[in-house]
Amino acid sequence: MTKTHTPRQPFPFSAIVGQEDMKSAMTLTAIDPGIGGVLVFGDRGTGKSTAVRALAALLPPIEAVEGCPINAPRRDLCPPWAQGVTDRMVTKPTPVVDLPLGVTEDRVVGALDIERALTRGEKAFEPGLLARANRGYLYIDEVNLLEDHIVDLLLDVAQSGENVVEREGLSIRHPARFVLVGSGNPEEGELRPQLLDRFGLSVEVTSPRDIETRVEVIRRRDAYENQYDKFMKTWRVMDAGLRNQILAAREALPKLKTPGVVLHDCAALCLALGSDGLRGELTLLRAARALAAFEGDTAVRRTHLRRVAPMALSHRLRRDPLDEAGSAARVGRTLAEVLP
Amino acid sequence: MTKTHTPRQPFPFSAIVGQEDMKSAMTLTAIDPGIGGVLVFGDRGTGKSTAVRALAALLPPIEAVEGCPINAPRRDLCPPWAQGVTDRMVTKPTPVVDLPLGVTEDRVVGALDIERALTRGEKAFEPGLLARANRGYLYIDEVNLLEDHIVDLLLDVAQSGENVVEREGLSIRHPARFVLVGSGNPEEGELRPQLLDRFGLSVEVTSPRDIETRVEVIRRRDAYENQYDKFMKTWRVMDAGLRNQILAAREALPKLKTPGVVLHDCAALCLALGSDGLRGELTLLRAARALAAFEGDTAVRRTHLRRVAPMALSHRLRRDPLDEAGSAARVGRTLAEVLP
Amino acid sequence: MTKTHTPRQPFPFSAIVGQEDMKSAMTLTAIDPGIGGVLVFGDRGTGKSTAVRALAALLPPIEAVEGCPINAPRRDLCPPWAQGVTDRMVTKPTPVVDLPLGVTEDRVVGALDIERALTRGEKAFEPGLLARANRGYLYIDEVNLLEDHIVDLLLDVAQSGENVVEREGLSIRHPARFVLVGSGNPEEGELRPQLLDRFGLSVEVTSPRDIETRVEVIRRRDAYENQYDKFMKTWRVMDAGLRNQILAAREALPKLKTPGVVLHDCAALCLALGSDGLRGELTLLRAARALAAFEGDTAVRRTHLRRVAPMALSHRLRRDPLDEAGSAARVGRTLAEVLP
Amino acid sequence: MTKTHTPRQPFPFSAIVGQEDMKSAMTLTAIDPGIGGVLVFGDRGTGKSTAVRALAALLPPIEAVEGCPINAPRRDLCPPWAQGVTDRMVTKPTPVVDLPLGVTEDRVVGALDIERALTRGEKAFEPGLLARANRGYLYIDEVNLLEDHIVDLLLDVAQSGENVVEREGLSIRHPARFVLVGSGNPEEGELRPQLLDRFGLSVEVTSPRDIETRVEVIRRRDAYENQYDKFMKTWRVMDAGLRNQILAAREALPKLKTPGVVLHDCAALCLALGSDGLRGELTLLRAARALAAFEGDTAVRRTHLRRVAPMALSHRLRRDPLDEAGSAARVGRTLAEVLP
Amino acid sequence: MTKTHTPRQPFPFSAIVGQEDMKSAMTLTAIDPGIGGVLVFGDRGTGKSTAVRALAALLPPIEAVEGCPINAPRRDLCPPWAQGVTDRMVTKPTPVVDLPLGVTEDRVVGALDIERALTRGEKAFEPGLLARANRGYLYIDEVNLLEDHIVDLLLDVAQSGENVVEREGLSIRHPARFVLVGSGNPEEGELRPQLLDRFGLSVEVTSPRDIETRVEVIRRRDAYENQYDKFMKTWRVMDAGLRNQILAAREALPKLKTPGVVLHDCAALCLALGSDGLRGELTLLRAARALAAFEGDTAVRRTHLRRVAPMALSHRLRRDPLDEAGSAARVGRTLAEVLP
Amino acid sequence: MTKTHTPRQPFPFSAIVGQEDMKSAMTLTAIDPGIGGVLVFGDRGTGKSTAVRALAALLPPIEAVEGCPINAPRRDLCPPWAQGVTDRMVTKPTPVVDLPLGVTEDRVVGALDIERALTRGEKAFEPGLLARANRGYLYIDEVNLLEDHIVDLLLDVAQSGENVVEREGLSIRHPARFVLVGSGNPEEGELRPQLLDRFGLSVEVTSPRDIETRVEVIRRRDAYENQYDKFMKTWRVMDAGLRNQILAAREALPKLKTPGVVLHDCAALCLALGSDGLRGELTLLRAARALAAFEGDTAVRRTHLRRVAPMALSHRLRRDPLDEAGSAARVGRTLAEVLP
Repeated sequence: MTKTHTPRQPFPFSAIVGQEDMKSAMTLTAIDPGIGGVLVFGDRGTGKSTAVRALAALLPPIEAVEGCPINAPRRDLCPPWAQGVTDRMVTKPTPVVDLPLGVTEDRVVGALDIERALTRGEKAFEPGLLARANRGYLYIDEVNLLEDHIVDLLLDVAQSGENVVEREGLSIRHPARFVLVGSGNPEEGELRPQLLDRFGLSVEVTSPRDIETRVEVIRRRDAYENQYDKFMKTWRVMDAGLRNQILAAREALPKLKTPGVVLHDCAALCLALGSDGLRGELTLLRAARALAAFEGDTAVRRTHLRRVAPMALSHRLRRDPLDEAGSAARVGRTLAEVLP
Repeated sequence: MTKTHTPRQPFPFSAIVGQEDMKSAMTLTAIDPGIGGVLVFGDRGTGKSTAVRALAALLPPIEAVEGCPINAPRRDLCPPWAQGVTDRMVTKPTPVVDLPLGVTEDRVVGALDIERALTRGEKAFEPGLLARANRGYLYIDEVNLLEDHIVDLLLDVAQSGENVVEREGLSIRHPARFVLVGSGNPEEGELRPQLLDRFGLSVEVTSPRDIETRVEVIRRRDAYENQYDKFMKTWRVMDAGLRNQILAAREALPKLKTPGVVLHDCAALCLALGSDGLRGELTLLRAARALAAFEGDTAVRRTHLRRVAPMALSHRLRRDPLDEAGSAARVGRTLAEVLP
Repeated sequence: MTKTHTPRQPFPFSAIVGQEDMKSAMTLTAIDPGIGGVLVFGDRGTGKSTAVRALAALLPPIEAVEGCPINAPRRDLCPPWAQGVTDRMVTKPTPVVDLPLGVTEDRVVGALDIERALTRGEKAFEPGLLARANRGYLYIDEVNLLEDHIVDLLLDVAQSGENVVEREGLSIRHPARFVLVGSGNPEEGELRPQLLDRFGLSVEVTSPRDIETRVEVIRRRDAYENQYDKFMKTWRVMDAGLRNQILAAREALPKLKTPGVVLHDCAALCLALGSDGLRGELTLLRAARALAAFEGDTAVRRTHLRRVAPMALSHRLRRDPLDEAGSAARVGRTLAEVLP
Repeated sequence: MTKTHTPRQPFPFSAIVGQEDMKSAMTLTAIDPGIGGVLVFGDRGTGKSTAVRALAALLPPIEAVEGCPINAPRRDLCPPWAQGVTDRMVTKPTPVVDLPLGVTEDRVVGALDIERALTRGEKAFEPGLLARANRGYLYIDEVNLLEDHIVDLLLDVAQSGENVVEREGLSIRHPARFVLVGSGNPEEGELRPQLLDRFGLSVEVTSPRDIETRVEVIRRRDAYENQYDKFMKTWRVMDAGLRNQILAAREALPKLKTPGVVLHDCAALCLALGSDGLRGELTLLRAARALAAFEGDTAVRRTHLRRVAPMALSHRLRRDPLDEAGSAARVGRTLAEVLP
Repeated sequence: MTKTHTPRQPFPFSAIVGQEDMKSAMTLTAIDPGIGGVLVFGDRGTGKSTAVRALAALLPPIEAVEGCPINAPRRDLCPPWAQGVTDRMVTKPTPVVDLPLGVTEDRVVGALDIERALTRGEKAFEPGLLARANRGYLYIDEVNLLEDHIVDLLLDVAQSGENVVEREGLSIRHPARFVLVGSGNPEEGELRPQLLDRFGLSVEVTSPRDIETRVEVIRRRDAYENQYDKFMKTWRVMDAGLRNQILAAREALPKLKTPGVVLHDCAALCLALGSDGLRGELTLLRAARALAAFEGDTAVRRTHLRRVAPMALSHRLRRDPLDEAGSAARVGRTLAEVLP
Repeated sequence: MTKTHTPRQPFPFSAIVGQEDMKSAMTLTAIDPGIGGVLVFGDRGTGKSTAVRALAALLPPIEAVEGCPINAPRRDLCPPWAQGVTDRMVTKPTPVVDLPLGVTEDRVVGALDIERALTRGEKAFEPGLLARANRGYLYIDEVNLLEDHIVDLLLDVAQSGENVVEREGLSIRHPARFVLVGSGNPEEGELRPQLLDRFGLSVEVTSPRDIETRVEVIRRRDAYENQYDKFMKTWRVMDAGLRNQILAAREALPKLKTPGVVLHDCAALCLALGSDGLRGELTLLRAARALAAFEGDTAVRRTHLRRVAPMALSHRLRRDPLDEAGSAARVGRTLAEVLP
């Protein structure tokens, strides 16, 4: 037990075998973070946390002020309470922040030290995980085990893009724009519908069911562990290609056309599915646009809607006790009827 | 993810598609805050919090002493413990204060620092959300998830118009006149009848059930997000018109006539509905008067009663297990019989 | 929303429409506080808290030492720990103190500051609500929601007339003679029989069931709110008359005769009702005497017993699952048999 | 409400109408405190707490060192930590200490102030209720509502006659010899059999079931309240007689004979009743001796056993689900068979 | 109540009537403490705590360094943190320490005062009950009511013979070799099988079922209380004889022979009983050896095994729902079959 | 009880009778710690904790920097916050750290003293059990009784090999590579499937079922306790042989071949068993390789897979309510079908 481990990069995103839905959903939010968070449902051992760690290496880097606790892109956007901020710009990886189970609210939103502020006029705000996640991703393993009020708070901030901390009349606010990625095992507790609805996309992951795929998974993990350098050389190229495609899609997105018929399709589909509220339509449209941009199209089309509908809508359906097929199947069936 | 967001104004009140009941109820309380709070029941994603944020931009501005923590309209009405109050008057938006879930009582009513008061004779009161909401609105999302004693306290203050904080023999009191707006999802927990009865009005909101309306909703949200300046220009005009109509109604209200037959109608309707207590009658009458003033009438009439009865009475009925129609339907049926 | 509210007096006791039982019970305890507390059961919105606030204005004023925290009637009866006591006498309203839900024991009984007492020899006792209620009324809304040990404590003090606070060997005691008035909604939780039994009287209030009464209620509330000065002028006269009648009854009470047959009637009635313990008899007798005094009689008679029996005994009966009529009905029926 | 109350003595023990069992049990423990505590079961309003307060006035006074916190009978028996102890002897009433519901352990056993002891060498022990109850009675209303570990602690001290407080290596001990009197309403929660068994005697009290007795109760309470001086004059004589009889019995007790047949009777009775353990026999014997002494007998006899058996044994029987008669009835029946 | 109590010695061990199993088990652990703790099951009032207090007076005294908190037998074995240790040896009774219900972990294991240790370098460890029990007995009344983690901790220390206290990187260890004696009432809650298994022996005690025995119990208790000096004189002699026999057995134990057939018998018996694990065999062997030594035998034999098997094995059996006889009966039956 | 105990070495690993699965699993993790933790299920008294203590003496020693809190193998790898680190290398036993029940998170991960760090710039990190366990074993008795979030944390660190402690913006990280060994009694509570899956291997231990084995166990324990020196001399030689075999296997492991067919066998077996996720395959492969290396083979083969499959897979199966055979039996049956 004296072997010393060299620090390693995470397993490459492109080298993940299968799990196309999960990879697509993550890619779409990398193009348009406004789509909102991603919920990944699935059994244990299906590589959910491996995928999130892989995502960190895939995402395009950001330019940020050195030492800025919120990774601000310009010196004047750094918060006044920040300390150790320099005048240099640095390129750094898109942040991917892990939210530990049992985390306290102070640790998440940051801590305001009232007494220090009043008596010494000193640095009174200790930024939390939300500051660190700004312009990046916040990952929650087993989101269904987190306390409701923390999930609530996270979704509020994710939606408003701003973290406001108020204690005894003092108030601090700073940008906190990030995409929430949550993993959950539906067998271990459920999220309230109110919370489900506020995630943008949801996907399901399962273990592969054929031997060839499984052998391929073992082979790649084995190569990653025992032939690290050779393995990484191959797959880093793949990751770089994907990263460039995302950057191109971000450029193209604002110029993309949205025909009226597509709006009509969105509404017709959601109405047919009986999804509550209107977040369904809005997310569906955004995700379809991001997909169109990713594929180099100049306008969003029904075909894009059809492909993102399951991940945009499945988690917004009311439970139907008479319909034993899962939510994704109901979305698929309704798609076939409404948008043939 | 380097795009910087410009701060934006909320979605305009007039641009909300449909949801006429909710908009009416909010408008009536803007005319006569004495009507009491509004409870908005409805599914997730039906735009309840969008509507409250919109309300903030719609409401007529107030004149207040600069720096006064309770927005007092005259220098001598500012509380003695206030700090940083100037001698200038400022025009500011009607306050709309958000009550976060899990809020502490101190944060709501304000904190009395006994020790500082005694030992240093210094500013001993840190005003809370109730101070800030004075002369405006206090919004509670998911009021059914709030602890009973906080709801109780809020309704007490809303009714008396005064916030009294007492700790160890010291006592602070300041005006806190506001309208409570609460949203709730009846599927996630109920309010005790005692608390329900103390809200003035209640309305229900649902997702639109036809494609055209839904397309219109998407179109407006899309325009708000992608063509912000053009979109706001159109709708700000509409909001201004509504604001002027509210101001005119406030002027007209004290001169409005109340025929005896209308009192009789109020009592007959409430008796027929078997509503407990007498808050029903009193709220019904006030809301009908505000509606009459809003519509430029010189006297309140049976037709006004009929239109506000569902929102003034539905939440005061005893549950009737043999009557499957909802409360609003029961109010409607009884209206047809009693005030034909 | 810029209208400033002038402070107003509570709604007059005499102007309360109907609710004769509640008004009688309160009047009797104003004549003889030794009758004990009053429990008011009833639906929401039946004006219970309005009545208590009205009571405050009705009750005869007291003479008290200025600045005395227990409203002592003579300088030498002020507690030694009191501060700011002067040598002047003042006339002040009978105190009516409101006990907020969720109140702490320290706030109720007063706080002993051990450390200050020992180290600085300074004023070590901060009187609580019980001190302030001395010689008056203590009102608890929704007494069934209060914690048992607080109710217990309140009833103990109410019975002994003395508040004793002991902490770490120090002990403070001061008179605390008051009448407890509690309101409760029997649908929201019950009081333990042990506690019920320690209230002197109980009454039930309901919403009026005829249109004329209800119109009258609306009309008076409307006048109170919209024609305040004129309305108060009328009803203050009525309140003054009632107050004088109470003062006269207090004078007459000690001289009132109690024939032996009345004692026998008391015992026979309670035995027939199977009421546990002997508090029933004693309260019945006291309440009947107060009624006799109020009506100018020189001796208490069976007719007085008959009229106060329901309020003195209903809450002391064991529940009888085979008898669907309420407790008051059982008292009535037994009265008809035993004291025809 | 300006009448000032003169401090009054409690209702006299002899003036209590009926309730002979309760009065006997209390009297026996006044003769031999070694019998152990008394449990009084009964409905509300049956005068349990009146009786305990009456007991305080009945009990023979004690001689104690002035200012001694444990009422020691000689100067050298006062604890070393006591403060303000003088060299004078005083005669004072037998202490009767009330244990409030919700009392803390520190308040009961006394508080050891470690820090003060170590740093300042000052008075480090603040005696608790157990110190004050030494040589007297400790009364617990509704003992079944007290936490088990407090009851446990009280019974331990009552049995050992010594209170030992240990905190962080420091240890204080002082005599705490008292009789525990507990009242309980069996409908509101039960004591664990382990605890029941450690009370010496148990009695049941009920409301009188005939009119004459009840009238007599009312008449005496009425006289006590309205003709205080005259009433007390009569009954104080009766109490004095009883007190002298108790003092004589204490003198006679050590010389009382205990024939072997009486021991045999004790064992036979307990065996026939199947009472667990041997505390039954021992208590039965002690109580019978005290009764014999009270009645001026020179030896204890079967007739004494018969009369105290119900109060010494009823609470030690196992519950017998097939026997609907209460425990006292079972004791009576077995008495008739075994000690005819 | 002025009689002063002279401090008394506990009731003598030899004077306990019957309860032979309990007395044997305690005696065996006095010969070989390595047998482990003793669990005493039984109804209330069967003299369990009397027996433990009696044990204290019976046990042979130990030689210890004066002032040593762990009663070390040599000066150099006293812990370095001990204070007030002298160079003299003293003879003192074998310690019997009582573990109060509700005891804290700090009180049991001792308290490490980190701050004092770091800042002042002063005596940082306040030894707990485990230190005081070293070389003696630790008694827990109602062990089934103790929290699991405390029982766990006690059994760990009892087994390892060492108490290790670790707090924030500091660590103190000292010998803590003691025998655990626990009493429990099986009707009031059970010990987890994991914990049961770690006690060496278990015995059951019941009330005697014949009159003669019970009369004898009463007679002796009566003599102890009323003729203390005479009673103690008789029984102290008996206790001294037993003490000498224990000392002789301790001497003989290491020289005792253990034939191979006895090992085989142990294994065969435990296998037939299906007792989990191997602690059964090991304890059975040790207890049989101690019994052989106590009786002056030079080798352990089947007859010794037979006599200690019930107390060594009964509490290690799995519950058998089809076998209504108790565990002890099952051990007896299997003994008859396997070791005839 | 005056006999002094000499400190002893634990019972030798080789001298444990039977329990081959448990010994194999522990040996395999000694060869490749990357296999992950070991769960040992079994009844009480089957020697689980004896085995772990034995393991400590068996494991090959490590070379570490003297005084380094994480046992670092080179001076420059010692953490900067470490104190008392020297420049000497020492050989020390592989650490085996015991995790007490009820341990706090601070004790496990280490405590960051924020205040000291900020105000005095002093040593601010107090390393915890995870630091001490680096390069060794962490043992948890009754892992099923530990709180989920602690188990979670332990498995996270065990997997990542790094302990990260973050408090209020400060962050400490240090290597923490160890093998987790947990024992559990399945009758006393279960681990969540999520946690089970993260242990590498699982084995079951039971009491031996034949007399000869049990006699052998008693004989060896007896020899260990009564003839310590002679007993240890024999078995230390056996332990040394096993230790050398482990060291040789560690050397051979990196050169071992893994034929493609073995990967295929892994996948086929796991698919047939329906084990969720892919941790099954990966662990199976690692364990088979370690076994091959232990036995001196140059390539891993199907026969190695077959032998380690039960311990690598049994705890990853979904419960099958229709299959009453245990998990290990299901693995065996599937092995016979899939890898004949």
